[in-house]
Amino acid sequence: MAMDYPSLRSVSGFSWLGINLGIKDESLDFGVIASECECSAAGVFTLNNLPGAPVIVGRENIENGRLQAIVVNSKIANVATGKTGIEDAKNMCLWTGEALEIAPELVLPSSTGVIGQRLPIKTIHEGCKSITEQLGSSTEHIEKFARAIMTTDTHPKWSSCRVGNATILGVAKGAGMIEPNMATMLSYFVTDAKLSSEELRAILYRVVNKSFNRISIDSDTSTSDTVVILANGLAGRVDTEEFEAAFTKSAMQLAKEIARDGEGATKLIELTVSGAKSQPMALQIAKSIINSPLVKTAIHGADPNWGRFVMAVGKVFEYPVPLADLSIHFKKGTQILTVNAESLDAGEVDLEAISALLQNQEIFIEVVVGSGNFSETVWGCDLTKGYIEENAFYTT
Amino acid sequence: MAMDYPSLRSVSGFSWLGINLGIKDESLDFGVIASECECSAAGVFTLNNLPGAPVIVGRENIENGRLQAIVVNSKIANVATGKTGIEDAKNMCLWTGEALEIAPELVLPSSTGVIGQRLPIKTIHEGCKSITEQLGSSTEHIEKFARAIMTTDTHPKWSSCRVGNATILGVAKGAGMIEPNMATMLSYFVTDAKLSSEELRAILYRVVNKSFNRISIDSDTSTSDTVVILANGLAGRVDTEEFEAAFTKSAMQLAKEIARDGEGATKLIELTVSGAKSQPMALQIAKSIINSPLVKTAIHGADPNWGRFVMAVGKVFEYPVPLADLSIHFKKGTQILTVNAESLDAGEVDLEAISALLQNQEIFIEVVVGSGNFSETVWGCDLTKGYIEENAFYTT
Repeated sequence: MAMDYPSLRSVSGFSWLGINLGIKDESLDFGVIASECECSAAGVFTLNNLPGAPVIVGRENIENGRLQAIVVNSKIANVATGKTGIEDAKNMCLWTGEALEIAPELVLPSSTGVIGQRLPIKTIHEGCKSITEQLGSSTEHIEKFARAIMTTDTHPKWSSCRVGNATILGVAKGAGMIEPNMATMLSYFVTDAKLSSEELRAILYRVVNKSFNRISIDSDTSTSDTVVILANGLAGRVDTEEFEAAFTKSAMQLAKEIARDGEGATKLIELTVSGAKSQPMALQIAKSIINSPLVKTAIHGADPNWGRFVMAVGKVFEYPVPLADLSIHFKKGTQILTVNAESLDAGEVDLEAISALLQNQEIFIEVVVGSGNFSETVWGCDLTKGYIEENAFYTT
Repeated sequence: MAMDYPSLRSVSGFSWLGINLGIKDESLDFGVIASECECSAAGVFTLNNLPGAPVIVGRENIENGRLQAIVVNSKIANVATGKTGIEDAKNMCLWTGEALEIAPELVLPSSTGVIGQRLPIKTIHEGCKSITEQLGSSTEHIEKFARAIMTTDTHPKWSSCRVGNATILGVAKGAGMIEPNMATMLSYFVTDAKLSSEELRAILYRVVNKSFNRISIDSDTSTSDTVVILANGLAGRVDTEEFEAAFTKSAMQLAKEIARDGEGATKLIELTVSGAKSQPMALQIAKSIINSPLVKTAIHGADPNWGRFVMAVGKVFEYPVPLADLSIHFKKGTQILTVNAESLDAGEVDLEAISALLQNQEIFIEVVVGSGNFSETVWGCDLTKGYIEENAFYTT
């Protein structure tokens, strides 16, 4: 399939692998990223109170801002697995560290998939022994890594860009249990730019807030969400503002790719709420709309049922919006179809034109809630029978 | 279809009608309840900040605790219709009042259906002229009223009981845009018991909190939700505690009927969260679980994916629950299948038995979150392709 973001770029000093260990039947299920030297590192993790074992171990290992490798399996999430799960996650770091001849604390572990099952830990131990012979830095190696971390994703996801002499590359997986409350899904960035872990932390926090914290697929918050960046410094210092701008752009592209590829999704929705009196007001109304099952199903069916936007704005109890201040704008290029929520002249609202516009695969909507100066943009997807199909029988 | 609640009882002094005025093509679309004398009355309405015109007018009319009639149309909700909508709602009261020879302020109006369209007000005016000749107090009249207020409901809903010499009868419609944040859907109760409007208000508030505020279908909050009770006093005083107990039981039956008949629903879910340290903690965790799309789809597919309960408990950020304190109990009669979230002995969890239990049409689940003394029970339904079908093309 055609990817609408820049092509894959390798990054100096980083090597990758994606292989099948037999955790899944045939497709790739195990991945490693390794740097040739220690990296500055920063990460953000799920806010879910019951995070998976890899998140618990990963938070510890990244605490001092140093990492050199990442090890990931898909199919089983290693969540709700108690002390055994913690041991398993630590062993994944230990065995990866042994293979790479680095300290286990320099390895960040991730697991994604079903909750409440134990990892096939012997299989993983065997797999770790082949890490060094499988690692490589070609785009093919990177693509295999991107495939190895997939669960219900329909395609691998990456995004890369250049900053001065340095490169930033991000690889992610998404698909379900995703809501903008914190770092969502698994997303790994590597760069050869030289930045301290303090710099990385501050930048990552802001970047995640503009990208992964602005997407929603189903309002559920995963127990495994992780966004990590590793900087090995091989390309030297870069302008940090330029770096942040490029990183933000890459992260937003990946976040949108994740929303577009939401479970069962057929449409990407970009929603801007503007005219709000504060940032929290804009964000909360935007989240209410992008998460509303009735808005999402209407967009799926290209049903110009704009009243559901009125409902979704009105159910944000903390921020009342007078009907007279509320308007909904359906956009496509320069075409804008506006519904003023209070004016009830049926002739003014061209429902057929709105329906035609909602047939597109990318839907742009702006909801104006007043004359305030604050706005927020979020991304989501439609709610379809495909979502039900994927989730009604996930473990069976 | 078989109704599992007591059969329909008429109530002295109340008459009913349900007819087709041509707002819908053929099915009943207009209903009236009229008392032969003024009633004490109390109501609770949606918390949505953008309520429909009938809710705005209804709140005004019920302010002084006196009502004598209710007029309802289905198909169009008269929401987001500005000043014209308010006029239309007031006219519905005026014309109903004219027919019944009572003040328009004694009439409560309701409309349910699509948002953002104007009522066919001339049709309704014509219809109001035939009110007196159509009213009747037979169970057939009541059933027709119950059918006339339906939108995507698959069957009419009522519940009745006796208290001393008095009767309580409730009639409701539900089906979508329903979440336990306040009075949900349209629900009308009438009784011939004698109670003051102050007594009714206090009782109604408590009853709604135990019934309609404990159901959820899709987490969306309607702009039209209304629960009203009219007491005409013809049967004299009753014991208020007995009255409240009977009213609570009736309201809970109706609330469960609404959840069971949620859009596309195939299963009723009764969920109790117990062992919480406070009432808000129990309720918030219960709502997180009952609203989780991933829990709802898993139950639809009878998928024993209990990890999703762990996720839904963990995403209530305000109330952390240690994994060791969390257990999930799937119940059917005396059979209880328990999953302790932390103990990871696959042999202990009989997934096949849980799956078999989830095949039932009534699902009983208790989630224990600690050793606290607080618990809450909520009702919801599964999320199915039927929900997508009904909502993707609702107005088209």
